[in-house]
Amino acid sequence: MAQIKIGSYIVQRIKELGIKTIFGVPGDYELVLLDMVLDAGTKWAGNPNELIASYAADGYARVNGYGAFVTTFGPGELSAYCGMGGQYAEYVPVVHVVGYPATTAMKERAIMHHSLGNGNFSMYHEMVRNITVASTVLDDPSTAPSEIDRVLNAMVHFNRPVYIGVPVDIGPQTIYTRNLETPLQTSLQPNPHELEKSVVDKITDLLSSRQNPIMLVDGGAVRNGVIPECSELIKLLQIPYFVTPMSKGGISEALERFGGVYAGGASIDDVRYNVEKSDLVLFIGSYKSDFNTGVFTAQISPDVIVDFQRFTINVLGTEYKLSMKYVLHRLCSVLKVGNIKVPVRSQIEWDPYPLDKFEVPKKLTQDFLWAALGRYFQSGDYVIAETGTSAYGIVASNLTNVDNIHMYSQTVYGSIGFATGAAVGSFLAGKESNTIKRGILVTGEGSLQLTVQAFSDMLRHGLNTTMFLLNNSGYTSERLIHGMEATYNKIPEWDYSKICELFGPSLQNKYYRIETPQQLLKLLSDSEFNVAHCTQVVELILDKRDAPISVIRSAEAVEKFNKAKQAQE
Amino acid sequence: MAQIKIGSYIVQRIKELGIKTIFGVPGDYELVLLDMVLDAGTKWAGNPNELIASYAADGYARVNGYGAFVTTFGPGELSAYCGMGGQYAEYVPVVHVVGYPATTAMKERAIMHHSLGNGNFSMYHEMVRNITVASTVLDDPSTAPSEIDRVLNAMVHFNRPVYIGVPVDIGPQTIYTRNLETPLQTSLQPNPHELEKSVVDKITDLLSSRQNPIMLVDGGAVRNGVIPECSELIKLLQIPYFVTPMSKGGISEALERFGGVYAGGASIDDVRYNVEKSDLVLFIGSYKSDFNTGVFTAQISPDVIVDFQRFTINVLGTEYKLSMKYVLHRLCSVLKVGNIKVPVRSQIEWDPYPLDKFEVPKKLTQDFLWAALGRYFQSGDYVIAETGTSAYGIVASNLTNVDNIHMYSQTVYGSIGFATGAAVGSFLAGKESNTIKRGILVTGEGSLQLTVQAFSDMLRHGLNTTMFLLNNSGYTSERLIHGMEATYNKIPEWDYSKICELFGPSLQNKYYRIETPQQLLKLLSDSEFNVAHCTQVVELILDKRDAPISVIRSAEAVEKFNKAKQAQE
Repeated sequence: MAQIKIGSYIVQRIKELGIKTIFGVPGDYELVLLDMVLDAGTKWAGNPNELIASYAADGYARVNGYGAFVTTFGPGELSAYCGMGGQYAEYVPVVHVVGYPATTAMKERAIMHHSLGNGNFSMYHEMVRNITVASTVLDDPSTAPSEIDRVLNAMVHFNRPVYIGVPVDIGPQTIYTRNLETPLQTSLQPNPHELEKSVVDKITDLLSSRQNPIMLVDGGAVRNGVIPECSELIKLLQIPYFVTPMSKGGISEALERFGGVYAGGASIDDVRYNVEKSDLVLFIGSYKSDFNTGVFTAQISPDVIVDFQRFTINVLGTEYKLSMKYVLHRLCSVLKVGNIKVPVRSQIEWDPYPLDKFEVPKKLTQDFLWAALGRYFQSGDYVIAETGTSAYGIVASNLTNVDNIHMYSQTVYGSIGFATGAAVGSFLAGKESNTIKRGILVTGEGSLQLTVQAFSDMLRHGLNTTMFLLNNSGYTSERLIHGMEATYNKIPEWDYSKICELFGPSLQNKYYRIETPQQLLKLLSDSEFNVAHCTQVVELILDKRDAPISVIRSAEAVEKFNKAKQAQE
Repeated sequence: MAQIKIGSYIVQRIKELGIKTIFGVPGDYELVLLDMVLDAGTKWAGNPNELIASYAADGYARVNGYGAFVTTFGPGELSAYCGMGGQYAEYVPVVHVVGYPATTAMKERAIMHHSLGNGNFSMYHEMVRNITVASTVLDDPSTAPSEIDRVLNAMVHFNRPVYIGVPVDIGPQTIYTRNLETPLQTSLQPNPHELEKSVVDKITDLLSSRQNPIMLVDGGAVRNGVIPECSELIKLLQIPYFVTPMSKGGISEALERFGGVYAGGASIDDVRYNVEKSDLVLFIGSYKSDFNTGVFTAQISPDVIVDFQRFTINVLGTEYKLSMKYVLHRLCSVLKVGNIKVPVRSQIEWDPYPLDKFEVPKKLTQDFLWAALGRYFQSGDYVIAETGTSAYGIVASNLTNVDNIHMYSQTVYGSIGFATGAAVGSFLAGKESNTIKRGILVTGEGSLQLTVQAFSDMLRHGLNTTMFLLNNSGYTSERLIHGMEATYNKIPEWDYSKICELFGPSLQNKYYRIETPQQLLKLLSDSEFNVAHCTQVVELILDKRDAPISVIRSAEAVEKFNKAKQAQE
């Protein structure tokens, strides 16, 4: 019977999931494994450090479906845990393969480099259990294939990160290929037929009887891959639909009856009113985190919510163990038949973006910037916005004229530095799948400083990134929450025009410094700039107190919330 | 009775330990805490990212005794775990203070930003238990002072890292100052008098009766602060003494009877012979890790070892619960009385550095580089060498003419990227204590790429770092172990002359590109370069296959060891 090396078995499974590029940083416990990555025809995209590798794998998975990265035991993997926390929180399925010391060395409790020096080798695995849905350290070739499959199937099933430790003496050992004949289970088990039917009936009954049904597409819809179903349902039902900060850019705003961005008290008044007055909210993939709900100010009664989740459907308070994917399928099928009468609403009667005025101000402001960027974005753009003013700001950008954009922020986990690293992976996946028009990174200078060397990857992979760098002399989001003039919210001054010169000296790039609204308008209308045939750094000089209205509102809400919590104590 | 805010109580305790500067990255859960840092007159040295903060705190503690850094819950702290792993492995006492969400939000299981989105808030604390000797998350003001003291006393007692979580609503609450009247226990409990006396008697008996006593000063001696005692003992006993890779530069090599650097099979033959033939080895703070022992090729019989550890003394195989610090004190006292006769050796009869020839080669080689740097180092220099060729190479540099140098590498944990971050903390502590002459960083370009933005800190704090950057087109240490021509051992090309221009544009700096031995000699003899009155980047162009002989030997040993482990399976 055919045989395969254990390391190659892992790579084979990774390839089966459609992963063409693996990220990471080499280390001596994993070098033999990396040979197998290359032997399998998989692309190795080494990163400057492991945190960037984990972010890149995250960004890659958000485009490609799944991602993978390889690091070394100890320092390598620990440097990437922050990235895994984000993958866990935001349902991004990534496998982290870790090169371990030899099993014999571990059994002898030898004091190997990268260990804690105490003869213990299980502590990192203990740590990582907290931020994965499954994990294994392969110590027995006979169980290796089933362990690998168990872990990867869990990743696929739960849509969250996993961990596979491969001791340096285990990777090259051979096993039978038999298990490879059974593919990984990339589809969820079908729902119980009767239950699914009865719940869909309940939902269609509600759709027939309620007067103001809407759909609220949240981050879980994007992360669980049901955007096509949501879009179809919107068209079939002809009801208003809304997005949230977490789903912003994950579903087209160009469909009919787009209502706006809902985030509780941080929403535009008309949007908030129309969501909260609805008597039936199809809430797809709701994720009620602070930053996604205007700091818990969203007010939608459970009496009107049909909550669709990966493994459950909750109809006005009653929960059913059903996968939303199939429920949405059936709902679409039933509606197509046409027997269900849903109260059809006329067009939206309010402006989803009333602040999107595009009046040229005297000074460059954030509100103008987001209005301008909304007009700059095109179909086919990939836009990654950093936590902080960028993520908040971009929520206000009007995407109703762009029917196909790939945009996200790390709304829940909110790790600054993420966007720059994730952009590497997303843009690379977009390039690989030939689906990207332009790769656009929007970040602040405080955030950029954490992972700036990711530019080295962008440059060498020819990703032609356009970065809008909001330079507002420090951590503006933090300033607005607390410490406007505090020294700890200051950051060192860098010369951002030198980024590409340092990180990719031989590669073509452009740098623009923008200080006025006129300069910005001119740049954004420049055809060469729009084509983006090389890396472009656009440094925007902004006032340190200026922020989009949504940030100011939310920052106030955060400090109020923190203080209220103090008072409660 | 006097009262104090809980956050200020922590800062007070940190100050009590002699910590003047706190590192970290701000986040909204910790901003109020940072106000208290500043209010106490402590210096806040914000870093570009958390990993660098943890490395900087490590470097600071290695000079100052203790270190501290502050990050935010979740992404912030997780990004720093790699640094904490290193602190744990190498006995570096650092307190990591983490800003947590409000206790009320945690009790309500609110989905706060930086959490994993599941209402759980204990997972990061669970993780960090694996890499700390004590930890707490303060959730009750009444127990806060005793919890803080418990954790900080553990840090001091075990000389290892600890963790204090401070919810945003707990930091500002007031408590009584009473506990502050009792200082932290920075001294270990005295040893039981009779046992200490009897063990010292055993040791002096051995010293009188054995013919070839030597002292082997290992990394634990440096990390447990007994170098003054070791030096005194060497002078009193007039016996040969040796260092290891981990203690290199931690004790002066300028004392009489310096024997060389011992690392088992990776040692110079004469050194190995003279260590392993000894019939009594005073082994101070032994740390038998792979990289510190020539991959476990050190061969010293337990029958001849007196092993001195922080909490134990092992005399020829019998262990006693005694702190080495006091045992060494008593040993010195007893020897000063002069009744003990120790066989006096004449001067060392071998050359500790026989390869240190300083013959100018045709091409720039690593062996020449380390010989040249040995001659360049001066008393008062702080030298941080990165894991990989730098750490190996520096072991071969002759320091017998420098009586006071502060030098270290992260020998056990071996996280690349560490040296650049740690240099920030060490040089700053050296500047603060007015003990540093020049701050010298020796690293490879592969390692630099992980944490290059630490240069931003070096520049703005005016540390006048001189960096010797070994550019050998990739991960040379890895290449020597496995994959000489493999693409995964390549790294992107950067223009290192732009480092200071990007990270500290307005600050004075110099860049030198060195391609020949003559250029190196000229530079190292230049008086202005030697004064180092600004940041200096020296890029050394080396062949990718060239490495110090110790690296080549050790790399061979590592691959052999890994393969032997495979064969054993």
